[in-house]
Amino acid sequence: MSDSNDNAWTRRDFVQSAVSGAVLVATPSFLRAAGVGGGADGDKAAVLAQIPKQHAENIKRLQDWIALPSIAAENRNYPQGAEYMMKLAAEAGFTDLKIIPTSGKPGVFGRLDAGAKHTLAVYFMYDVKQFVPEEWSSPPLEGRLVEKPGLGTVIMGRGAVNQKGPENAFLAALAAFKASGKKLPVNLVLVAEGEEEIGSPHFGEIVSNPDVLPYVKPCIGVLLPNASQEQDGSVTVEAGAKGICEIELVSSGEKWGRGPKKDIHSSLEAQVDSPSWHLVQALNTLVEKDGHTPAVPGFFEKVRPLSDAQKKMVLEFAATVPEATIKTKYGVERWVKDEDWQTSLLRLYSQPTINIEGLVGGYTGPGGKTVLPHRAVAKIDMRLVPDMTTEDTMEKLRNHLAHQGFGDIEVTMTGGYNPTQTDPDSPFFKAVVASFSRLGAKPLVVPRSPGSWPGYRFTDAPLSLPAGGFGMGYGTGAHAPDEHFLIESKNPKVQGLDGAIASFVEFLYAVA
Amino acid sequence: MSDSNDNAWTRRDFVQSAVSGAVLVATPSFLRAAGVGGGADGDKAAVLAQIPKQHAENIKRLQDWIALPSIAAENRNYPQGAEYMMKLAAEAGFTDLKIIPTSGKPGVFGRLDAGAKHTLAVYFMYDVKQFVPEEWSSPPLEGRLVEKPGLGTVIMGRGAVNQKGPENAFLAALAAFKASGKKLPVNLVLVAEGEEEIGSPHFGEIVSNPDVLPYVKPCIGVLLPNASQEQDGSVTVEAGAKGICEIELVSSGEKWGRGPKKDIHSSLEAQVDSPSWHLVQALNTLVEKDGHTPAVPGFFEKVRPLSDAQKKMVLEFAATVPEATIKTKYGVERWVKDEDWQTSLLRLYSQPTINIEGLVGGYTGPGGKTVLPHRAVAKIDMRLVPDMTTEDTMEKLRNHLAHQGFGDIEVTMTGGYNPTQTDPDSPFFKAVVASFSRLGAKPLVVPRSPGSWPGYRFTDAPLSLPAGGFGMGYGTGAHAPDEHFLIESKNPKVQGLDGAIASFVEFLYAVA
Repeated sequence: MSDSNDNAWTRRDFVQSAVSGAVLVATPSFLRAAGVGGGADGDKAAVLAQIPKQHAENIKRLQDWIALPSIAAENRNYPQGAEYMMKLAAEAGFTDLKIIPTSGKPGVFGRLDAGAKHTLAVYFMYDVKQFVPEEWSSPPLEGRLVEKPGLGTVIMGRGAVNQKGPENAFLAALAAFKASGKKLPVNLVLVAEGEEEIGSPHFGEIVSNPDVLPYVKPCIGVLLPNASQEQDGSVTVEAGAKGICEIELVSSGEKWGRGPKKDIHSSLEAQVDSPSWHLVQALNTLVEKDGHTPAVPGFFEKVRPLSDAQKKMVLEFAATVPEATIKTKYGVERWVKDEDWQTSLLRLYSQPTINIEGLVGGYTGPGGKTVLPHRAVAKIDMRLVPDMTTEDTMEKLRNHLAHQGFGDIEVTMTGGYNPTQTDPDSPFFKAVVASFSRLGAKPLVVPRSPGSWPGYRFTDAPLSLPAGGFGMGYGTGAHAPDEHFLIESKNPKVQGLDGAIASFVEFLYAVA
Repeated sequence: MSDSNDNAWTRRDFVQSAVSGAVLVATPSFLRAAGVGGGADGDKAAVLAQIPKQHAENIKRLQDWIALPSIAAENRNYPQGAEYMMKLAAEAGFTDLKIIPTSGKPGVFGRLDAGAKHTLAVYFMYDVKQFVPEEWSSPPLEGRLVEKPGLGTVIMGRGAVNQKGPENAFLAALAAFKASGKKLPVNLVLVAEGEEEIGSPHFGEIVSNPDVLPYVKPCIGVLLPNASQEQDGSVTVEAGAKGICEIELVSSGEKWGRGPKKDIHSSLEAQVDSPSWHLVQALNTLVEKDGHTPAVPGFFEKVRPLSDAQKKMVLEFAATVPEATIKTKYGVERWVKDEDWQTSLLRLYSQPTINIEGLVGGYTGPGGKTVLPHRAVAKIDMRLVPDMTTEDTMEKLRNHLAHQGFGDIEVTMTGGYNPTQTDPDSPFFKAVVASFSRLGAKPLVVPRSPGSWPGYRFTDAPLSLPAGGFGMGYGTGAHAPDEHFLIESKNPKVQGLDGAIASFVEFLYAVA
């Protein structure tokens, strides 16, 4: 699925080649901070000093968690994943832990009352993406420590970076508070879900649960623990994310009442209609002749243009990140409509899209097989910008298809959520930037991620909280084989596990 | 692939529900014929009488052959398959056996000089379709004997009906001649290929080989041993077959020079072109607005209309085979353009097609995955009628795509051949009908198969021979799991192995 992970993925690709001068990370600040004594700073120093001492147990916690993959698409390890999430939260100091039932997989809720003035909400996903062990160089459930040349020692396993690694770093930060006997500067509530990788279809039920909502409502913001660094040390901070509708369009003889109801021999196409041609014709109506611009009537109706401040962020990004390296990175020679770098980035951050993720029909193996398929499927994602909503956009899509004579095509939203937006001038956001700066990195702020995560459940009414995914550290391979998260960094610009933990300690103080 | 097998497949579907009165098969004629003495009829009786005696060894020959699958798509068992084909042919009495090298997999050629006046060519394929053992109820390479309720004992294995079963029945007919000490009434040449299942891409090299062509040229016709019966005993005889182009259309960022050169995150579709949309737009130009009629300019230019005699065949077929049962069989509620049964059958037998066999792009698994695929593929087959050719049709397709702005889309013909046509009034064809009649079945002749086989290599210049796939017996599951061929029939209307062998003995006498 998309979500925080996509979010990270996209940003990661984007800034990998960013000018490193702007975002250099120097000596981990927790080593420096450890020298400071007295008061809150003294507390923080004591907490930070704990981190290296708990290094081994912090690794083991992650390895044990990786060994228990909850995968909603495979109905694997439920409710065990939720129960394990409760156990981890309890060890970190959370109380009042509850399984939150949904129509799908359960969520987990808990509180950590530190007697502080403010409360921060933390969003966790305890599920991971499917994996094919044969494709991995290291067993995906073992979380082995592996040397990566130029990078250092990484932990390799499914969920290592998406999202157990960063989440474990956050739990390790809480463990450091506990071990040092210092109180958290901020109270916490934990909201965890187990369906992020299938598009968080029931996350709304968790957030609106009467055992959850009243505790999240007064929070000062919502943190999604993330590994936001690049291998060159750079950090981009996204003040929101596009929304998404993930859809399957299914054309079938059954629903159409034309064509066959099962795959038949292709020679019969002479006298039997083809659900595949029907799908092709339907798809063809979704974009303009340019093969890109969404052609669904009213699609752009609710698009809120970028503000001047947002445009300025984009232009700063364009000036900082070199176009040529990004083009090379993606294997892209030309942007849409042959636009220049600035125009294309303004488009990226401001425009909604209709994309074909996948096409599946009939025979998909090597060579050919002479069938007239009874069914053809297009996997589509639509990215939404404020003030679009999934509901309105889906309705427009359905109306359009019906109007064009494709009302028989089944339109199923398999996952999705509205766009999310947080004011970069909010105290929450400023605390994020401050915690990065403490660790020596000046982040590059952009209006939103072109990817998606279900943050709108927090940022929209009734909660209307600032929310975002942040944290130091590095990892890659989300959804892919050999997913990994950096433990011991050989690169002074990039934080390993201890630095990632330190960034959460810094953040908790900064946000308090 | 298509070919003889498709041919059988299509016809099989079509006539399964044919009025059985027209095509009833009574007591196997070889039992009756065995009572006749003296002369050619006495010889035939002696040969037919051998068949039941060799029953066990005829089954074993097929089982041993099934155990050695040659699969060109997997480069499996070459040259072993060709060597085994030589061994089988040698045992059946062929001499001068030769491996015929090609740019692909080798063919096999041999002669059987019986001192007869005429020579018949026999076309064999020694390769089989890929298979997935897990999908089978019986190990696909064991050729186990399995009871099928209502049908009898079948041999189950890959190639059982497509095409080793019928070919083995033909070899068994030769073994019956040998065992009875009777001379064949006709000389034989064997032309075998090992790439039928990938579209016979090098079969032309085999036929035109100087070690082959001079021997095939004087033949009276070409037989493809087939199991032409249905479970209800009916038989359709096709006086030809449509040609085919199997094609892959590949749209990719690499070739296009737009879009990505590898799969990237779908959020980037905002600024990067999509090879999938490009493919959809290209496909959309291939058919008219009706979603069916080929829209490639000049596509119908060379289509030869059905003759009055051919139309008469179709109308007889329409009058014999009930529309409702065929619609149920296919799961079809309406024919193209809501035509009636006769009109739709005239379309089926006379019109060329462009069909989508498969669509493959990006993420094809369960649920969604937010990628912008760098590549999307449409698997297309075009069925050709006389006087269309693969070469001319491919050129028209390529020109059309280039003209419409899709010249970057790679167009690969993965297999294919021209249409094939034989005069149903030819002596060869009359011998086929006679041999069926001897076994109590009155076949229904149709202008051509809407499916395809590479018979044009024989029926077109320079050979210009009559050619077709025929033989009694029953089998099903070509290309599918649990492929099987009937050995002991419980249904008096359907021939088992011995009856299939007898039909080839009858045919050899009839064609001589």
